[in-house]
Amino acid sequence: MAAIDTAALNPKIIARGKEFFQSIAGEAPSIFNKGWWTGKVMDWAMKNEDFKVQMFRFVDVLPYLTTSESLSRHIEEYFGDKDANIPDVLKWGAGKTGFGGGLVAMVLNKAIRSNIEGMARQFIIGEKASEAVKGIRQLRKDGFAFVIDLLGEAPLNEKECDEYMQGYMEVLAGIQSEYKKWDGLDTGGELDWGHAPKINVAVKPSAFFSQAKAVDVAGSVEGIYRRVEPIYRKIKEMGGFMCIDMEQLKYKEITIELYKRLRSAPEHRDYPHLGIVFQCYLKCTDVDVSEMIGWARKENLPISIRLVKGAYWDSETVLAKQNGWEVPVYTIKAESDMAHERIARMILENHDICHFACASHNIRTISNVIETAKALNVPDSRYEFQVLYGMAEPVRKGLRNVAKRVRLYCPYGDLIPGMAYLVRRLLENTANESFLRQSFAEGAELERLLENPIATRDREVAAKKAPAPAKMGPAGYPAFANHANVDFTVPAARAGMVNALAKVRKDFGKVYPLVIGGKEVKTSEMLDSYNPAKPAEIIGKVCQAGVKETQDALAAAKKAFLEWRNVEPLERAKVLFKAADIMRRDINELSALQVLEVGKQWDQAHADVAEAIDFLEYYGREMIRLGSPRRMGNAPGEVNQYFYQGKGVTAVIGPWNFPLAISAGMAAAAIVCGNAVVYKPSGLSSVIGFGIASIFKEAGLPDGVFNFLPGKGSVMGDVLVEHPDVSVIAFTGSMEVGLRIQEKAAKVQPGQVQCKKVIAEMGGKNAIIIDDDADLDEAITGVLYSAFGFQGQKCSACSRVIVLDPIYERFVSRLAEAAKSIKIGPSEDPANYMGPVVDKAAQQNVLKYIDIAAGEGKVLVKRTDIPADGCYAPLTIVEGINKGHRIAQEEVFGPVLAVMRAKNIDEALDIANSTRFALTGAIYSRSPKHLEKARKEFRVGNLYLNKGSTGAMVERHAFGGFNMSGVGSKSGGPDYLLQFMDPRLVSENTIRRGFAPVEEGDDWVA
Amino acid sequence: MAAIDTAALNPKIIARGKEFFQSIAGEAPSIFNKGWWTGKVMDWAMKNEDFKVQMFRFVDVLPYLTTSESLSRHIEEYFGDKDANIPDVLKWGAGKTGFGGGLVAMVLNKAIRSNIEGMARQFIIGEKASEAVKGIRQLRKDGFAFVIDLLGEAPLNEKECDEYMQGYMEVLAGIQSEYKKWDGLDTGGELDWGHAPKINVAVKPSAFFSQAKAVDVAGSVEGIYRRVEPIYRKIKEMGGFMCIDMEQLKYKEITIELYKRLRSAPEHRDYPHLGIVFQCYLKCTDVDVSEMIGWARKENLPISIRLVKGAYWDSETVLAKQNGWEVPVYTIKAESDMAHERIARMILENHDICHFACASHNIRTISNVIETAKALNVPDSRYEFQVLYGMAEPVRKGLRNVAKRVRLYCPYGDLIPGMAYLVRRLLENTANESFLRQSFAEGAELERLLENPIATRDREVAAKKAPAPAKMGPAGYPAFANHANVDFTVPAARAGMVNALAKVRKDFGKVYPLVIGGKEVKTSEMLDSYNPAKPAEIIGKVCQAGVKETQDALAAAKKAFLEWRNVEPLERAKVLFKAADIMRRDINELSALQVLEVGKQWDQAHADVAEAIDFLEYYGREMIRLGSPRRMGNAPGEVNQYFYQGKGVTAVIGPWNFPLAISAGMAAAAIVCGNAVVYKPSGLSSVIGFGIASIFKEAGLPDGVFNFLPGKGSVMGDVLVEHPDVSVIAFTGSMEVGLRIQEKAAKVQPGQVQCKKVIAEMGGKNAIIIDDDADLDEAITGVLYSAFGFQGQKCSACSRVIVLDPIYERFVSRLAEAAKSIKIGPSEDPANYMGPVVDKAAQQNVLKYIDIAAGEGKVLVKRTDIPADGCYAPLTIVEGINKGHRIAQEEVFGPVLAVMRAKNIDEALDIANSTRFALTGAIYSRSPKHLEKARKEFRVGNLYLNKGSTGAMVERHAFGGFNMSGVGSKSGGPDYLLQFMDPRLVSENTIRRGFAPVEEGDDWVA
Repeated sequence: MAAIDTAALNPKIIARGKEFFQSIAGEAPSIFNKGWWTGKVMDWAMKNEDFKVQMFRFVDVLPYLTTSESLSRHIEEYFGDKDANIPDVLKWGAGKTGFGGGLVAMVLNKAIRSNIEGMARQFIIGEKASEAVKGIRQLRKDGFAFVIDLLGEAPLNEKECDEYMQGYMEVLAGIQSEYKKWDGLDTGGELDWGHAPKINVAVKPSAFFSQAKAVDVAGSVEGIYRRVEPIYRKIKEMGGFMCIDMEQLKYKEITIELYKRLRSAPEHRDYPHLGIVFQCYLKCTDVDVSEMIGWARKENLPISIRLVKGAYWDSETVLAKQNGWEVPVYTIKAESDMAHERIARMILENHDICHFACASHNIRTISNVIETAKALNVPDSRYEFQVLYGMAEPVRKGLRNVAKRVRLYCPYGDLIPGMAYLVRRLLENTANESFLRQSFAEGAELERLLENPIATRDREVAAKKAPAPAKMGPAGYPAFANHANVDFTVPAARAGMVNALAKVRKDFGKVYPLVIGGKEVKTSEMLDSYNPAKPAEIIGKVCQAGVKETQDALAAAKKAFLEWRNVEPLERAKVLFKAADIMRRDINELSALQVLEVGKQWDQAHADVAEAIDFLEYYGREMIRLGSPRRMGNAPGEVNQYFYQGKGVTAVIGPWNFPLAISAGMAAAAIVCGNAVVYKPSGLSSVIGFGIASIFKEAGLPDGVFNFLPGKGSVMGDVLVEHPDVSVIAFTGSMEVGLRIQEKAAKVQPGQVQCKKVIAEMGGKNAIIIDDDADLDEAITGVLYSAFGFQGQKCSACSRVIVLDPIYERFVSRLAEAAKSIKIGPSEDPANYMGPVVDKAAQQNVLKYIDIAAGEGKVLVKRTDIPADGCYAPLTIVEGINKGHRIAQEEVFGPVLAVMRAKNIDEALDIANSTRFALTGAIYSRSPKHLEKARKEFRVGNLYLNKGSTGAMVERHAFGGFNMSGVGSKSGGPDYLLQFMDPRLVSENTIRRGFAPVEEGDDWVA
Repeated sequence: MAAIDTAALNPKIIARGKEFFQSIAGEAPSIFNKGWWTGKVMDWAMKNEDFKVQMFRFVDVLPYLTTSESLSRHIEEYFGDKDANIPDVLKWGAGKTGFGGGLVAMVLNKAIRSNIEGMARQFIIGEKASEAVKGIRQLRKDGFAFVIDLLGEAPLNEKECDEYMQGYMEVLAGIQSEYKKWDGLDTGGELDWGHAPKINVAVKPSAFFSQAKAVDVAGSVEGIYRRVEPIYRKIKEMGGFMCIDMEQLKYKEITIELYKRLRSAPEHRDYPHLGIVFQCYLKCTDVDVSEMIGWARKENLPISIRLVKGAYWDSETVLAKQNGWEVPVYTIKAESDMAHERIARMILENHDICHFACASHNIRTISNVIETAKALNVPDSRYEFQVLYGMAEPVRKGLRNVAKRVRLYCPYGDLIPGMAYLVRRLLENTANESFLRQSFAEGAELERLLENPIATRDREVAAKKAPAPAKMGPAGYPAFANHANVDFTVPAARAGMVNALAKVRKDFGKVYPLVIGGKEVKTSEMLDSYNPAKPAEIIGKVCQAGVKETQDALAAAKKAFLEWRNVEPLERAKVLFKAADIMRRDINELSALQVLEVGKQWDQAHADVAEAIDFLEYYGREMIRLGSPRRMGNAPGEVNQYFYQGKGVTAVIGPWNFPLAISAGMAAAAIVCGNAVVYKPSGLSSVIGFGIASIFKEAGLPDGVFNFLPGKGSVMGDVLVEHPDVSVIAFTGSMEVGLRIQEKAAKVQPGQVQCKKVIAEMGGKNAIIIDDDADLDEAITGVLYSAFGFQGQKCSACSRVIVLDPIYERFVSRLAEAAKSIKIGPSEDPANYMGPVVDKAAQQNVLKYIDIAAGEGKVLVKRTDIPADGCYAPLTIVEGINKGHRIAQEEVFGPVLAVMRAKNIDEALDIANSTRFALTGAIYSRSPKHLEKARKEFRVGNLYLNKGSTGAMVERHAFGGFNMSGVGSKSGGPDYLLQFMDPRLVSENTIRRGFAPVEEGDDWVA
């Protein structure tokens, strides 16, 4: 390949760009035309960020507003705010009269709907297959090739995936009936431009398999392949081209694998017209493209790459930030532009094996491709240009003039997914850094628009303020941040779990002693802990404490307390930080143990360990914060300090469902506050419980500050609760046990010198409300996960879904289908969505409630297609449930969901609030007013707006409820530690003989 | 009188000052001589503020260090800190070897003691009367007149006052035996300088009556007069002069009254040699001197005024700041200098009726007097100069040269009060603004030293930074500040109480209804509330709730809650602020009612109302602070808000001892958090309780949010506690009732949907430790007030005093004498220190415990000299008590104090911590290590160092204990409101279609 003179290239690119601009002088994309409603809206959106947010959100919700009432209400809610500062001309023509009511409103509503639908139609070639075919026919007449793409809602179940596949078959059939009549573009004949298939189709892989997930690459590729391959075969049959689109990063590995599998399948090896997309905003794309080309050479298979900048910048960034991952995309726009130039050149240098499609509206980017291809003597047949239908008309015209080979990316399909697509396009046009906005709406200097992106990047970096220093926490520690969620898109993360599962299994059957005052104590009484997916598999044999051991443990804790309480808060915190380090080191093994001992899914087991780490890091910092005495008042001559001391011996009684996080959290809180702990784990997760003891020991906690005391509640529970030396009882578990503990703890025993503090997290009967304008793609995903994640065995689990009447049928039918689609089986296999419940007793309890539910309502789904061995319980959804039913009031703690119907939001809230519990809740709604109403009146400890009801993270979602759901303040929240301490105040009179030293902060006279 | 040319005067003053300086050129006060140990210490103290504090504090404690061990320990504690940065030369000659032990230490200790005692002797003319007489004889030989003053510890009892009076008689006797032999100074003859009595004596009025207090001017004057008058008569007998010194501002009115009474007594009218002192640093002194001269003219009685700058600047400022009063002293030193010049002139202008003594070491001040007197032609016999013995030797020498008539103020007496005097003198020499320091240690420019103080003031004002803006609280309200304590030095404040008592009495016998849901409800059952000082006097007849009324009240509260919880926090807070306004308006009536209904002393009744105001203001602000939702985390695409909601119906069960503050505080906390209250007042203070209902009504609280429900606990107490609709019980009272409430509340009742929160402030058995180096003047005052203030009827009252062995006898004998001295009688008369206990039952209970105590220990004091009518109980002090005694363990709630002896501080702390209670405690100690130890190991809710155990103020001394003293967090503290609310968290997913609006604080990429 010929080396090219890089220095000489840039002036040529700029010259080419200027020529390009000249050839389209005076033209502008229709979307910026202020003579039209759309142009006005765009103009205002670019000037007013708040309006833009409201406008785009309104566009998003519009297809759900099926009644005039609903449409009016939303217009009022989105734009009725007097402070919104919307110019009159944009008030949908309402002028100064406002939004009003009656007939005027109806007319207005109609106008609005038609304006926005018109806006959408600008970017979508048709709603039906026949319209699409008609549209592409017209495009071809204008000299443009096409690539057709079917819009679709996120497929939530396999039925929808089938339908989606059918959608492609339908449009292909439409094309098939006439494509032979089309002349090849420019050159006539069978092929466009003499070399390209006339038929070109784009597919989004994730839409073809509802159960695709990063952790299960093989299964996901298999699921997608099953539906994409027939489409590809059909396209092949017509001599067409298929491109596999690239979606979010989480699907990248699956998409590449899918491409390779399809491209190299014996049946398809010889057919070259299969393309794949890479996104230049991803930092990994240089390597990915290079590897792909290497694969092509190794396999000797010609490939085709479409190179785009990338369309999910916001969500990739948000996802990374919310999960604690490194941001995978470039954060300066010019860096993506640079990447495009760099990677385009790499592809063009390999044009012998790799066909190239440049997809960009950026004239600098396009000019670079033209000049680079020229410099490299790339034949015309080896590269082409693509732009989006309805976007950047001047660019497509210029491309047609300058580069000839232009293909338009043409989405077709229903308005609902269409609106989502519209929002993405509107964002693209209105982003501050949009090339189109700068070129056609703001008229930036040509020199600036065509500048080498390296220079742009350098200038932006230079102009940037120095980044704010990293937020610091107390005592020089970095500020608290959640432990990063595990990222199973990373192969090593998956391998880590596979290895850890094998490693943990090696220890099966071991005996686990008590730990009292630092010494291991064995008892003759033992309890087996078994794998709920395979009950014959014994995880460990756990020694059981009797009354004597309980008394010994309390005595050891009391002794240790008297020393430990005097240790400085910072030193206590350091033990927690060390324990967190150990957990980080052992996270795979700790997670694997949960997969096997309680049947948690990989990701959820990881999340539990991450939460334990978070508790340690958060409470450590909280104690350092609270550990500094606060000066109260500032009168001179008096120094008052407010500080806290530990309460004493703390009984920690943990649950099995978050076997590490909740127990370690309660214990860590107690410990860091200067208390000593006697920890009774659940019998179902005692092996994990022993791990906590080991970790605290390794972290250097003095003997006796944490005592491990597994045992039967019936034998030693009351001893623990009633003992006069116990100062605090931290409990997480059922309401029944929690209330019993409270009652017993309130009775003062002989010799007791303090009133016992009970902190109890108890049950929930959590509801999710589905408003009539909810985004169903998100709502169904959220409800499903909230109800059936970890088999519904979370106090935060959704066990009631309250659906508003207008959307009831649509929601319930999609939900039921989705529930039927999910995979059930051992949690050890990450392909499974749901596993066994925790033990045989739990299984029996769930079965009992399924009977109750079936008696009270109508069973919509009951998944009996589950493994016979192991503690599996059928996933069940029942409808026709009302407030009075037991299934609407009692906590099941299993995969049983009650569907309840509500006439309107007020009734929905009334139902939601109608139980004794008040733990979590959620609402899916796109009505600002309803969200606000829920914020106030949906009275639960943790309320989620447009999210599921589970998955609270430490600090961000400080967790806990009230009423019968709990006593005490939210765990992982700013008030939690206060419960484990007594405040003290020391007031010192500093005057001696009328002489008061000056203290910092004193209010002496100015 | 001749007008003088002010403009011409200043140059003359400066010239005179220069001449003065010239006449003493090269001389310096011996205290600054760095060749000596004292000079080195002074030099270092002026350079190092921390050392100065330690040094002066050490000087203060020295006389108490009677053993070598104690001395060594204190030296180590005060100066052993390696960081103290004390130059080796000051290490008492210990050089680099440090403080060491053994023989070296003994020698060193001796040297230190002798150095410091030598320092003291410089300022004190003698320890014994005979030494004093010898000293003044010598002074007269050197040409100086004297005024003699007897140092004394603060007299804490009448015996000490008698002894103090005897001290004067003794020195007068000594003088009497020889004064006739003395020649008059300068002129010879019977008088000094031909006109002044040779004998001149200063007396400090407060030292002559242990029960003097500002609120009781007549009684205080009477008490002092009784002992001062015989001294005066004796002085008169010898033809001498007596000057009544001015002390702290609180004694000013008493001192002036005393002067007038003595000066105008028929027996003494004709004798002119009685003087009084005025202090120029007080802003009121211009008026006071003018009035005094006016009085003299009106009465036609020649007077004499000594004009000083004032010696209590620190303590006057601190007192004002701590009480919320306007600072009464000038805050710029030059303003006091200006005042001296101004007032000196006023006096000199009135020299015909007023003799003048100028007391100052400031050469500008002196020169001004010389020149002003000259300009006004004041005869020499009408003014003289005074300086302190041992201070500013060059100045006295210069004065002798220039002004001739110089009198030295000569204190004599024991070393203990002597050290206090020494510290004052050292401070005076080392203060930054000290004229002596500037003149003789720092060698400031003459021009600067002699500058007109008006110019100095102007320059300082100009150089001052603009004062920091007033601290702001939330929502634009000023920051919280305690309501100013009542200042009974102000005559109007006293008159206000007199009027209010009369006004309140007019309403006696009225019927008080219940208030339920805003309506007054009368019942047939009524309870009389009577005046414990006069049981026949019925304060009011209070309707009593039965079961039905209780249920009605709870229903009304539940209904009101559903609305009230939705009212914005700021609006709720405003109701509290309005209620506080009403209380401020009615403070005298509200206080007077307490004086009569529960027998509180005037000042304590005022303090209770002030505390109620504070609770309202503080909780209002706290709710505004907590009412703003907190954003948790900062990941983009997610907005999490943490906020609080009220829990529900709150039963507030109040005590009678702080009948307004505690009840209003608990109720206000509940209300401002959005709860609705059913308030059951104590039957003993129900009329005050009705006042709370009236105040909330007037403040605009909606009906039903506060329900007034007096009733018998035996009839309706359990109904209130057990009702399923009650969410919170806020209780203050005895441990027995508190524990019963907790136990009952923990049992969930049918229909109950929430776990009840109990906040209980219960009893105390509070100890004060008296370390062997305690300042007994302060310790005895503090113990007395803590034990017998409001008859010991406070949960914070001191009921055990734990005295270290070495100081036991000294402390106990003075304490007992003090207890015998206090006045007992109706609280209505502010002269009484102690009044009746609250009712007949309380009286019986106290009597029972006095019997128990007498059986367990030895009665030291039992005041049976109390009114027969009314519910009086004898003030009792018992010694010989140990941990095992009932009187050391059970709360009496009356004026009974147990004295316990401890070998050392560890034993004292062990005793202190040996009860079930942990409410308040205090320690009097001047050992830094012991104070630090107490801070850590004296485990009570409120610990006071060198203060009494009562009198906690809102916020500054957030109040409450643990163990059996309480459940819940400190009232008036930053965690209190949290108990009345449940935290909620709302997490909103703000991403729609991959588009996340930017929120403030989002952690987007930099």
